[in-house]
Amino acid sequence: MTRKRQTAAPIALLTDFGYRDHYAGVMKGVIASISPDSPMVDITHGVPPQSVIAGAIALRESWRFFPKRTVFLAVVDPGVGTARLPIAIETRAGASFVGPDNGLLTLAAEDAGIAHAVRLDSQRYRLPDTSSTFHGRDIFAPAAAWLSRGTALRALGSPLERIHPLGLPPVVIGHREIRGEVLYVDGFGNLVTNISRRDLAPLQSSFPGKQVSVRIKTGAPMKILNTYGDAPAGAILATFGSFELLEIALRDGNAASRLGCDVGAVVRVGVSRF
Amino acid sequence: MTRKRQTAAPIALLTDFGYRDHYAGVMKGVIASISPDSPMVDITHGVPPQSVIAGAIALRESWRFFPKRTVFLAVVDPGVGTARLPIAIETRAGASFVGPDNGLLTLAAEDAGIAHAVRLDSQRYRLPDTSSTFHGRDIFAPAAAWLSRGTALRALGSPLERIHPLGLPPVVIGHREIRGEVLYVDGFGNLVTNISRRDLAPLQSSFPGKQVSVRIKTGAPMKILNTYGDAPAGAILATFGSFELLEIALRDGNAASRLGCDVGAVVRVGVSRF
Amino acid sequence: MTRKRQTAAPIALLTDFGYRDHYAGVMKGVIASISPDSPMVDITHGVPPQSVIAGAIALRESWRFFPKRTVFLAVVDPGVGTARLPIAIETRAGASFVGPDNGLLTLAAEDAGIAHAVRLDSQRYRLPDTSSTFHGRDIFAPAAAWLSRGTALRALGSPLERIHPLGLPPVVIGHREIRGEVLYVDGFGNLVTNISRRDLAPLQSSFPGKQVSVRIKTGAPMKILNTYGDAPAGAILATFGSFELLEIALRDGNAASRLGCDVGAVVRVGVSRF
Repeated sequence: MTRKRQTAAPIALLTDFGYRDHYAGVMKGVIASISPDSPMVDITHGVPPQSVIAGAIALRESWRFFPKRTVFLAVVDPGVGTARLPIAIETRAGASFVGPDNGLLTLAAEDAGIAHAVRLDSQRYRLPDTSSTFHGRDIFAPAAAWLSRGTALRALGSPLERIHPLGLPPVVIGHREIRGEVLYVDGFGNLVTNISRRDLAPLQSSFPGKQVSVRIKTGAPMKILNTYGDAPAGAILATFGSFELLEIALRDGNAASRLGCDVGAVVRVGVSRF
Repeated sequence: MTRKRQTAAPIALLTDFGYRDHYAGVMKGVIASISPDSPMVDITHGVPPQSVIAGAIALRESWRFFPKRTVFLAVVDPGVGTARLPIAIETRAGASFVGPDNGLLTLAAEDAGIAHAVRLDSQRYRLPDTSSTFHGRDIFAPAAAWLSRGTALRALGSPLERIHPLGLPPVVIGHREIRGEVLYVDGFGNLVTNISRRDLAPLQSSFPGKQVSVRIKTGAPMKILNTYGDAPAGAILATFGSFELLEIALRDGNAASRLGCDVGAVVRVGVSRF
Repeated sequence: MTRKRQTAAPIALLTDFGYRDHYAGVMKGVIASISPDSPMVDITHGVPPQSVIAGAIALRESWRFFPKRTVFLAVVDPGVGTARLPIAIETRAGASFVGPDNGLLTLAAEDAGIAHAVRLDSQRYRLPDTSSTFHGRDIFAPAAAWLSRGTALRALGSPLERIHPLGLPPVVIGHREIRGEVLYVDGFGNLVTNISRRDLAPLQSSFPGKQVSVRIKTGAPMKILNTYGDAPAGAILATFGSFELLEIALRDGNAASRLGCDVGAVVRVGVSRF
């Protein structure tokens, strides 16, 4: 009788630790020490420092492209050393998520369907001397490594009923206008808003045949294009980007610099005047 | 009878996606999903945004140091969503190259000897829903993963006769002077020019026994040294660097900042006045 | 009779090559060519350029979290092309270290217990054409790859009696006051000093029951807290951080910017006036 050897699940890392220090590297050292066969993939360590929303969106946009059993280790943790819980989540889609219970995991885990969650309170699956400042190394990395090796979620700690919601700014949907805001500025200077394709449906059905137009701050109205390439070089454009969220971009340039816009800038979608 | 199992070829990634976002990570998730055993190595994701020339040079300087069968996945793609083709190339040296047909792959692929090229138009080897803004994820990463697993190049799409040349600024070789320019500024502030060692041969044979000297913009003439260490600390120097191209550097410092020079600055090599 | 197959040891990389260029990637290509089965982990390539002290501290804080037999490949090398030696070190803890003999490896290697050291002068374990500017690629990466495969240290070169010490600024321990300085500013703007917990013991035993307080430059005195979370949001605080060294931090912010402090800023610890 043969028994199929369970291979270690991949571990995907997302943090705001940056690339200057050894912090992300040390987490990978801890993982390799506990589970030498776990493939590790960096999603990014460049989440803007302490931006839980930016990290949560990046994780939501990433998880589905990874192998089914991937363990996501995410740390954007302004509250390290406070009462916020370290947690792990198993989902119906197969992916697991490990990180602080501050909303960072919420969008991705809900998307994947939360099956079970635990607080990481078992001392056995932490590093022996847990610091109060580096839970990524001492609590989260070990938990991800053990999950990747096949340790059961329930062994890592006590069950958790509910995880922390993420406080995303709401999209205001009016009769003639939808109002959202910039959630995230990516490294190319593209402005990613909280307005999804679905948010536009009521407006489009109320004004059939009319085109919708987008304005950011007090700028000129823009049509929504299918792709960057449909805009002339040097033009500001609106499109649904790789996030499936409305983005404001500059063809061959940096829209954030050009428009002087950052996270929080107001974006309005209305019936076109073209 | 035993059959040697074909192991997955390494995949080396080079992009301008930066380190702030999840874009490079998502490409790696796609690769791991299609080909879990492919070792992945990041060359860099820090190519200056949309600088096809900088990416092409970095790729040419890198490929030969990787294992013979490596698949290079390179994405610097200002034209995503336009008519430029997604392509893959097999070379006589054994390496394969995947990316946009905008010149990015040209220097490296010609160096390795182009054997066959295809446009990546087979729907079967793309992600099911191809976006118009993120071909790295939807077209290039899957193609690289399938090549790494051993899928034949010709299965990925239809044959391509010719790939796009790279428009590098030419070196002007005169009787008494060679004129080039700065192509690339590396992260240490070293100024890499388009002047190769070979370009200097005619000048050196016309003036035997005379030393050549280098000037950048209107600066003082410099000898060409064998190594950074031959210059006194704090001095500007000219040397053939790891690119095998003439570089202007500052011993223990940043030449680009000190000289106020960037890509395009004129560099002249003439007969020395020392 | 079966013989346990010796698997390749992990290789952990730490450099100041940055993320813009292909230099770190090329080193990994060289390693993969020599030793395809060696797992590679980036600690960081973002050490501040040519900062040997910053690299030495990061390496000392990292090595113990990696698997026992890890080979550390560290390159921060302002003297490339000069007389400084390329070296490799075996330690009693099991880890090996490869890099320039400029103090970079010293803190970590002494911490791990130096067993043997060699200069990397065997031509056989270098790339065939060694450049004078890129020893990371031509000398250090090959040495690390061969060590990872199990090549004996002594094969790589001739024995070395003594490695270069690291010139760390000393902590001045007075009767009523300890004076140190900022060694390192991390990516979050935390100011890491050269003052360890042990340095504080004499002061605490001379003044039993009194609390000690910390001042940076001419700022107000601060208590030493157990964790960031014990400070109110927006407050400057002093704590023993993940380095086990005294750090000055800003709760939810960047202390270096707020205080206008950088490497070298004076930090004093005295008997509290609270």
